[in-house]
Amino acid sequence: MIAQRIMFSCMAVLFAVCSFAQTQVEQWGRFETVLHYKANGNAFTDVRLTATFSNGDTSINVSGFYDGADVFRIRFMPPATGNWSYQTSSNIRLLNNQKGSFQCIQPAAANHGPVKVHKQYHFSFADGKLFYPVGTTAYAWNHMGQALQQQTLQSLKQSGFNKLRMCVFPKNYDLVIEEPELFPYEVKQQATSKTDKWDLTRFNPAFFRQLEQQIDALQQLGIEVDLIVFHPYDKGRWGFDAMAQEANFRYIHYLTARLAAFRNIWWSVANEWDLVKPKTHDDWVALTKEISKNDPYKHLLSIHGSTAKYFEYWMPEITHVSVQDEAPVMHWGAASILRNVYYKPVVYDEVGYEGNLQHRWGRYSAEEMTYLMWMATIGGTYVTHGETYRYKDNTDTIFWAKGGTWKGKSWMRAAFMRKILEEGGGPLEPADISRDMHTATAGKGYYLLYFGKEINEYWVFNLPTKNGQFERAKPGDRFKAEIIDTWEMTVTPIAEEFVLGEQNDYRYYDKAMKKIKLPMKPYLALRITAIKK
Amino acid sequence: MIAQRIMFSCMAVLFAVCSFAQTQVEQWGRFETVLHYKANGNAFTDVRLTATFSNGDTSINVSGFYDGADVFRIRFMPPATGNWSYQTSSNIRLLNNQKGSFQCIQPAAANHGPVKVHKQYHFSFADGKLFYPVGTTAYAWNHMGQALQQQTLQSLKQSGFNKLRMCVFPKNYDLVIEEPELFPYEVKQQATSKTDKWDLTRFNPAFFRQLEQQIDALQQLGIEVDLIVFHPYDKGRWGFDAMAQEANFRYIHYLTARLAAFRNIWWSVANEWDLVKPKTHDDWVALTKEISKNDPYKHLLSIHGSTAKYFEYWMPEITHVSVQDEAPVMHWGAASILRNVYYKPVVYDEVGYEGNLQHRWGRYSAEEMTYLMWMATIGGTYVTHGETYRYKDNTDTIFWAKGGTWKGKSWMRAAFMRKILEEGGGPLEPADISRDMHTATAGKGYYLLYFGKEINEYWVFNLPTKNGQFERAKPGDRFKAEIIDTWEMTVTPIAEEFVLGEQNDYRYYDKAMKKIKLPMKPYLALRITAIKK
Repeated sequence: MIAQRIMFSCMAVLFAVCSFAQTQVEQWGRFETVLHYKANGNAFTDVRLTATFSNGDTSINVSGFYDGADVFRIRFMPPATGNWSYQTSSNIRLLNNQKGSFQCIQPAAANHGPVKVHKQYHFSFADGKLFYPVGTTAYAWNHMGQALQQQTLQSLKQSGFNKLRMCVFPKNYDLVIEEPELFPYEVKQQATSKTDKWDLTRFNPAFFRQLEQQIDALQQLGIEVDLIVFHPYDKGRWGFDAMAQEANFRYIHYLTARLAAFRNIWWSVANEWDLVKPKTHDDWVALTKEISKNDPYKHLLSIHGSTAKYFEYWMPEITHVSVQDEAPVMHWGAASILRNVYYKPVVYDEVGYEGNLQHRWGRYSAEEMTYLMWMATIGGTYVTHGETYRYKDNTDTIFWAKGGTWKGKSWMRAAFMRKILEEGGGPLEPADISRDMHTATAGKGYYLLYFGKEINEYWVFNLPTKNGQFERAKPGDRFKAEIIDTWEMTVTPIAEEFVLGEQNDYRYYDKAMKKIKLPMKPYLALRITAIKK
Repeated sequence: MIAQRIMFSCMAVLFAVCSFAQTQVEQWGRFETVLHYKANGNAFTDVRLTATFSNGDTSINVSGFYDGADVFRIRFMPPATGNWSYQTSSNIRLLNNQKGSFQCIQPAAANHGPVKVHKQYHFSFADGKLFYPVGTTAYAWNHMGQALQQQTLQSLKQSGFNKLRMCVFPKNYDLVIEEPELFPYEVKQQATSKTDKWDLTRFNPAFFRQLEQQIDALQQLGIEVDLIVFHPYDKGRWGFDAMAQEANFRYIHYLTARLAAFRNIWWSVANEWDLVKPKTHDDWVALTKEISKNDPYKHLLSIHGSTAKYFEYWMPEITHVSVQDEAPVMHWGAASILRNVYYKPVVYDEVGYEGNLQHRWGRYSAEEMTYLMWMATIGGTYVTHGETYRYKDNTDTIFWAKGGTWKGKSWMRAAFMRKILEEGGGPLEPADISRDMHTATAGKGYYLLYFGKEINEYWVFNLPTKNGQFERAKPGDRFKAEIIDTWEMTVTPIAEEFVLGEQNDYRYYDKAMKKIKLPMKPYLALRITAIKK
């Protein structure tokens, strides 16, 4: 964003309006135009400002927002190259009918656009590059002091994570008690209570500018931001979980006006929506629709409940399933059920955390956390990692809440798993649904087989005759295999080749019944790839 | 039905119309009135006949149907006692505006009304009596010869099954090749092909009368009929899977007009809907809605796909989930996922069959079939049993298709399981969702704990502190326990009492850490019940 601002040029000074705008923006970059106007009343609520951006047959309507100090901004993420022109619309004459244009150029190498649903169950960037979500969580890292924020960014940089769950509102929890420096609202002149101190009609632009810098900093690291719009971790401290629906909508309008043009944004309507006691289920349906409606780009959107609390993920506004539930990834064969039910991508965004907390959800071993990630992978779904180590009192950093440094061992395994996925033949699905719980396929002769906690001395080379939606293997097909140690993070090629024999009871065995000798260890996988003729 | 027909009395002879009707009918029994009219054209399609039944503020509109030989019938299942009057409506003057009334009396002891959804995830009869579906399947038993039909009814009588999946249309499959005696349609004067031999505008009343007798015979045995309206097992032999949508709708109208007044009917829109190649997904949505719309009583309704093929079970017309998928019941913790997703009762109507077929879905051991039933139970869901033994050629009876005699061992275990359920404290749910995969609760101090394939020497008495939606146990609560051997079908009380100690890491252990000695065998369960103070 800083780089783009250098490109600003003052286009016109007309009466009280000064319009700054860029002349060139990358595809999926962020165009921003600035308008000045001094409102008499409350510029957040009294001024309506939108703009229509047009390029050939395409027209996209976006909302502007008041950024304080008599500055209004309109942001736009151009989805296509070429010449874009725009025209504003406002109830304020001086902001109305402002026009401009810019050139949208090819994206830079690292810019692949926003992430979208790919082939029903998976994700890719807008330019088609596959995106395998290997995420982690740091709910309130953005509300910690600057030093800790920088440390968190450093930790993320050294990790392989490409998605981060984080909250807009600060978090109040027995493990996270820090008071933030910035709040999303102005303080009222006359507060009547601890939570009724905010003027919910006046946002604090400094708060949102910090959030934007954080989102951009994550974008620089190649990390998608799974931004949690509401959450229950307030408990009467600030009152952001208990605003009236009118205020919730106003907040959504402001948030989406500011952030929808950030290409690495995903919307998570809530964390643990069902634990937000002041809101009803119908409130959540309305909030989900409102966020979607106000996002002109239809970024990925989901809503996340407490353990095993499922929402209507079939709603058309919801692009993917984001659930808290470990049951689907603890044992064989369950991870795929939700794919089959919803016909959408499934991300198990909470399945427990590697850590040492007293809470049972926060004391998994690194091995278990890694196992759960692989169990999701083998089912054609995704698990989000998390870390909850605490060695001191509640001022200690726990990555899950505050960010900081890595203390565990599964974060490295997540990076290794991402590498395996990205080296692979494409998005995975179960090769033989509900029958073979261990074997995933990406088609074109690519199989990934996971043994989980099973310890085997050897494995007779065999593949299912079924192959998901893909073309089936056939007798005579030749394969090579590699042993993947998901814990040691090693890949060991097997020297031998394998050749499929005739179909034998829903399987093809190697025609000489060749075996692969396995180290007597858990957490192994096999990568099996066809040898091209 | 035979008993009720004796009560018929001729109410009026008016011109060509003769109206027979009963004067007294049980609540949820079947009232039937008969009208005579000789139609010039096609009485199935040219005559529209409905009746409105009224009792106080309640009015219910039902369709009549043509039963051949100039006879029209109107059936009605009164949902409440008292005086019901009715009035017909027809495009035929002689059938129009016919009136009558009858007295609806208290139901007999064995008549509990139709089965409904109970407490979101379970079932009960209309009178409140709980219904635990312990079903089996005999898809085409009703298309076999009379002797085999009688044998099937005898087998069902000696079993504990209370639900049967069966098809309206005959079945053509490598294991079921018999040609039925009766078909649902009249044969055309001039057939153009093997499948284009039916006059799809003229039903064969004899076919439907046989079906009705079968449904009534099952009712006498206390068995709910999960009636499969469409299926893919035709494959060009008769063409009933490939009728035009107009003919499908006509069939639905006729079927529901005849059968909706049978209290033991459930509608299964299809078996393996996705394998019916002539129909699209949207066709199934329309057919599902059409059946529901034409059933004035809103009997239970679902639709069943092939392995792991899920439908939009969130549709309001669909009362419960009826799926084919073994993945949810093969390993711990997955059975409940679908409950959590759909907020509806879940019946795993196909999870594989006890048998000896070459097909892998038809060669489970009796132990495995029994295990799957219990795995569903412990997850607060239901599994349908099935048997697929074949010892000779394709003329051999396989209960799953043709009925006949039991050849397996799990059918008895299903009866035992039903007994345990019906003795229990009510519908079960996981006590500690997604965390304790073994323990179900019915509240009021009732727990059912299943060990599955685990073999244990002893078990330290302990219960989860969580207890689903029910009141939690507390320190000092006293319990007794019984060992249930689900395979041997025995219940062995433990002499000792157990007393809960203080909460210990999400569990209450017996305060003296008392153990229960277990036989070193798989497939054991514990029934734990609070001792009333």
